[in-house]
Amino acid sequence: MGAEQAVTADGVSTTPAGIPTLAEIAATAGVSVPTVSKVLNGRADVAPGTRARVEELLRDHGYRRKRGGARPSKLLDLVFHELDSAWAMEVIRGVENVARREDMSIVLSESAGRLTPGQTWVDGVLARRPSGVVLVLSGLDQVQRAQLTSRDIPFVVLDPAGDPADGVPAVGANNWLGGLTATRHLVELGHRRIAMLGGPFRMMCSRARVDGYRTALETAGIGVDPALVREGTFHHESGYTVGRELLTLPDRPTAVFAGNDLQALGIYEAARELGLRIPDELSVVGFDDLPLARWVGPPLTTVRQPLVAMAETATQLALDLGRGQRPAVTRVDLATTLVVRNSTTAVR
Amino acid sequence: MGAEQAVTADGVSTTPAGIPTLAEIAATAGVSVPTVSKVLNGRADVAPGTRARVEELLRDHGYRRKRGGARPSKLLDLVFHELDSAWAMEVIRGVENVARREDMSIVLSESAGRLTPGQTWVDGVLARRPSGVVLVLSGLDQVQRAQLTSRDIPFVVLDPAGDPADGVPAVGANNWLGGLTATRHLVELGHRRIAMLGGPFRMMCSRARVDGYRTALETAGIGVDPALVREGTFHHESGYTVGRELLTLPDRPTAVFAGNDLQALGIYEAARELGLRIPDELSVVGFDDLPLARWVGPPLTTVRQPLVAMAETATQLALDLGRGQRPAVTRVDLATTLVVRNSTTAVR
Repeated sequence: MGAEQAVTADGVSTTPAGIPTLAEIAATAGVSVPTVSKVLNGRADVAPGTRARVEELLRDHGYRRKRGGARPSKLLDLVFHELDSAWAMEVIRGVENVARREDMSIVLSESAGRLTPGQTWVDGVLARRPSGVVLVLSGLDQVQRAQLTSRDIPFVVLDPAGDPADGVPAVGANNWLGGLTATRHLVELGHRRIAMLGGPFRMMCSRARVDGYRTALETAGIGVDPALVREGTFHHESGYTVGRELLTLPDRPTAVFAGNDLQALGIYEAARELGLRIPDELSVVGFDDLPLARWVGPPLTTVRQPLVAMAETATQLALDLGRGQRPAVTRVDLATTLVVRNSTTAVR
Repeated sequence: MGAEQAVTADGVSTTPAGIPTLAEIAATAGVSVPTVSKVLNGRADVAPGTRARVEELLRDHGYRRKRGGARPSKLLDLVFHELDSAWAMEVIRGVENVARREDMSIVLSESAGRLTPGQTWVDGVLARRPSGVVLVLSGLDQVQRAQLTSRDIPFVVLDPAGDPADGVPAVGANNWLGGLTATRHLVELGHRRIAMLGGPFRMMCSRARVDGYRTALETAGIGVDPALVREGTFHHESGYTVGRELLTLPDRPTAVFAGNDLQALGIYEAARELGLRIPDELSVVGFDDLPLARWVGPPLTTVRQPLVAMAETATQLALDLGRGQRPAVTRVDLATTLVVRNSTTAVR
């Protein structure tokens, strides 16, 4: 311990940069260096109390594993909130594109509907030391973020929902632009009674799409009719149910902008049941451009969310961060684009 | 080396069971035990010539890592031939169900269209020692199988295509039964001109489905018209192209059994273009029961391939093999079932 070192309130002496060494953490915690090392590597054979004490010291003192120490593995961790989301496959393909180029394998996990992955997952990550972590919708809590940061394991949130925590590197899509473009397309086709079926309003991506819709209408001098703006879930059933409500209104809309492609297909079904032909009697626009949008009848006009490119960008960002690069921008939204197919036409 | 040991032609002495020890392999190869150990663990820092010599000795002598030595990791390897196959997500969900129950993570790889995964993948597997490997359509070549066997890493082929190598543990679906059931359903609805659009005939699953179709027709006393049996690819475009050919025949079929759901949607599109209403003027049956089969218009009658259950079964089988269990049956086909929706009706 040199003359330049300081001593903090709890007695851990630090380097000039203020970051303590492993030995100092061990001494303060009253354990051996190998024990601290075990905690760092997510090993199970450490008493819970000891582990908690060491984790706390690592966190409080901003410990960072030195770059060039243990090398990261040729693994990339990819965590989903729920794997059966319709666009999970697109995301996997994007991550896989980068993994193949970098000769890495993907470790895939699902947080089983919980918003943050469990401690088992964190322990696994600490033990396998992936080169990067991509989290889809699942956020990490503050403690988990600190755990990964102290081990120098970089993470990026791939967040089509558009609401990551402050300071967390994240890749999203421009949902507002998508809402604007879709609605403008309908306005340009002469539609004035345009309904919007959104996703859950607690999700920022839903709100951004609705806001884009509002702005498109308002800038075209068309008032927003609150009766035509509905909240739904991102499922087919929601499109069907709300679609029936909208299409049986006395002054029914001539076009519906759906929050995603599955909702749009639900609206297709409602229209079929009511004998309304798409696009002649009803124009429909979706959101996402899943592969199935091309295959349904009629092929669906939709807002393309570049999920593969988003996943590629997030993965590359995680790897860059892991290699010690500090990109100027660690929060980026990719542009959405309108794909015009056969489910929209000029109003009669 | 005890009195009971034998010496083989190349001078490796063996235990009574005929399996040499690591030290014996090392001595014969003229390298150190740690070097053999590195080869066993897929480490990159071994000269290619040395590695090849050691691998050959391991293979020739049927070396098996002792159970209870290095413990397998909490990882499951899942390898796809191509990730964008329409049912990849279903398979992933099945593997994930078992992984979650067993507190394991999935390592996902794609063999990038090659029929066998590359050496990089094999090295990765040897290094990370997964508890089991599930291969989807991708087979291993004989050398790779020997490599995994010598490290006691169990593998199972999940093979909806129905053509695994001899002796390789495999889980498939009863494709023939699916073809039979789908065609019987159409026969029972009074159809006599029933076309079959199959997948590629080089795939056993395609042949089995066509054979089931033939048997259904023949046992119903209906001759098979060769003009109505077509080979296609498992894509939407193929359904559309062949669909147009079939539906413009002078004596067009009143029903088409498609080799998979995507082909069925291509037939939907061909029918729409030709102004043929489904099911009133044309009945269509698919195969797979992908989620989208419920969402299209009209919802598709299709043969359900229990992909999630197949993936669960394959994963569990790999884990059981890894735990030293020797199941009586290591080759199993799960039953397919017909799901009747709205794309089929009685012939007019």
